[in-house]
Amino acid sequence: MARFAYVNGRFVRHADATVHIEDRGYQFADGVYEVVTVLGGEFVDKAGHLARLKRSLGELKIAPPFSDAVLETVMRTLVRRNGVKDGYLYLQITRGVAPRDFKFPKVSKSAIVMTTRRQPFKPELPSEAGVSVLTVPDIRWARRDIKSIGLLAQVLAKQAGAEAGAFEAWMVDPQGFVTEGASSNAWILTADGVLVTRQADNAILHGITGNSIEALAAEQGIKVERRPFTVAEALAAREAFLTSATTFCLPITQIDGKPVANGHPGEMSRTLRRAYFEYGKSRQDAPFGWPH
Amino acid sequence: MARFAYVNGRFVRHADATVHIEDRGYQFADGVYEVVTVLGGEFVDKAGHLARLKRSLGELKIAPPFSDAVLETVMRTLVRRNGVKDGYLYLQITRGVAPRDFKFPKVSKSAIVMTTRRQPFKPELPSEAGVSVLTVPDIRWARRDIKSIGLLAQVLAKQAGAEAGAFEAWMVDPQGFVTEGASSNAWILTADGVLVTRQADNAILHGITGNSIEALAAEQGIKVERRPFTVAEALAAREAFLTSATTFCLPITQIDGKPVANGHPGEMSRTLRRAYFEYGKSRQDAPFGWPH
Repeated sequence: MARFAYVNGRFVRHADATVHIEDRGYQFADGVYEVVTVLGGEFVDKAGHLARLKRSLGELKIAPPFSDAVLETVMRTLVRRNGVKDGYLYLQITRGVAPRDFKFPKVSKSAIVMTTRRQPFKPELPSEAGVSVLTVPDIRWARRDIKSIGLLAQVLAKQAGAEAGAFEAWMVDPQGFVTEGASSNAWILTADGVLVTRQADNAILHGITGNSIEALAAEQGIKVERRPFTVAEALAAREAFLTSATTFCLPITQIDGKPVANGHPGEMSRTLRRAYFEYGKSRQDAPFGWPH
Repeated sequence: MARFAYVNGRFVRHADATVHIEDRGYQFADGVYEVVTVLGGEFVDKAGHLARLKRSLGELKIAPPFSDAVLETVMRTLVRRNGVKDGYLYLQITRGVAPRDFKFPKVSKSAIVMTTRRQPFKPELPSEAGVSVLTVPDIRWARRDIKSIGLLAQVLAKQAGAEAGAFEAWMVDPQGFVTEGASSNAWILTADGVLVTRQADNAILHGITGNSIEALAAEQGIKVERRPFTVAEALAAREAFLTSATTFCLPITQIDGKPVANGHPGEMSRTLRRAYFEYGKSRQDAPFGWPH
């Protein structure tokens, strides 16, 4: 079956999906993106992702190309056309095509691109080994709350992780605190049974999956603290895990080659992964609100 | 006359110049660029620009798509086809097209795009008013020595400048020192007659035009100091100016609405602009070496 992409008003074969070389996304990283999970043919946390998308666009003063209703219709159509039951939709909006000039063009039409990918999601862990992370210095710009396509630092972090045999890279600020993963939020469960993840300021991307995980944990009476933590604290923690739209919740069993706790996935990450899966299946839509 | 672009092996009409939506330049800003001045149909500081390009590619482990000789042939052909006497060539190389994944693809072919633009260059100042700059916090990533296409912070800086009626934005580090302009290097001439510009480390892009200006100044017996300077120092300076491939050397007469010295262009920036123009016309090729 041909796979389709949506590009500036048209559904095209993925292989033929192109943009102009002077699209400002290509020359300046002047754009933003979202990745939305599809579970049983429905979007998970759709409202949260669309709210964050709008916020990112607003911070950069990029005009949304469509109303929310039209955007959602296009998203649904692409998912249906590509026959995606489980997987995700990738969506990118840039400031559009204009003769190369740093400042915003006087006239330009926002450009929009969408693709999908199939990927199975299961409530069980994909592996009983958990995943490992490598820590790297966080060298990104100061506006990490904007989900921009300027991802080169994350690319380099992820590559460094991959070369070290790690699944993810944790980026660490100059004060020694973990900011987040290259494409996920970072969490620990302390010896006291408190979940800790960094507060949503300019230092990190505000995780939509993470927000729902936080709310699901709170529903179960688990205390959540929003504050930075160090690598040493994570190594001494009862559990560590990561959250993102494409991974849900994955236990971290090694950091820089050292085991977290006993080196095996813990119960909390298992429980929260299952809870997020059930929440996604239930087709509730971002009942927990965003942003904080 | 049709204007051509060069895209991955073909000369195409500019209007038809496209890249795939999964070019990593479009999704990750995973690429680098150069802008090379064309004066009388010849490249200025060509060796310097190509050396910096190679260094940027090397730092990101992106394979050069061609040998230097082939690259230069393509550059010359495009300039000739587009009939550019005075202007510049824009050149962008990315890690190429691959299914979206942060880490480097196992197999990908570097993508290359070139465009040209005509622009007159004159040894005289374009305006006796000089130019004004707005200062903004430098919020960029930590590897500014890599000339990456991840330029969103520079876009926002330039736009803030434009909205304040300024020609350029000077980015200022947390210690209060000017790093550089959004698309130029920053210089002052102190009361003692010493030229000051920031040392070429990770905090700034290493300017090719600036390096030649430095060498031309040294040839005339002018002392050059490579160190950071503050906005206050610039305001109290005898002159301030900026250098870049597309502007050569332009006197700065206002910073944040306050006059530099008497608020008129000084002799040093006039002299260096003329010297750079003559140097460019002489078709010497980066005799001064790069990098520092």
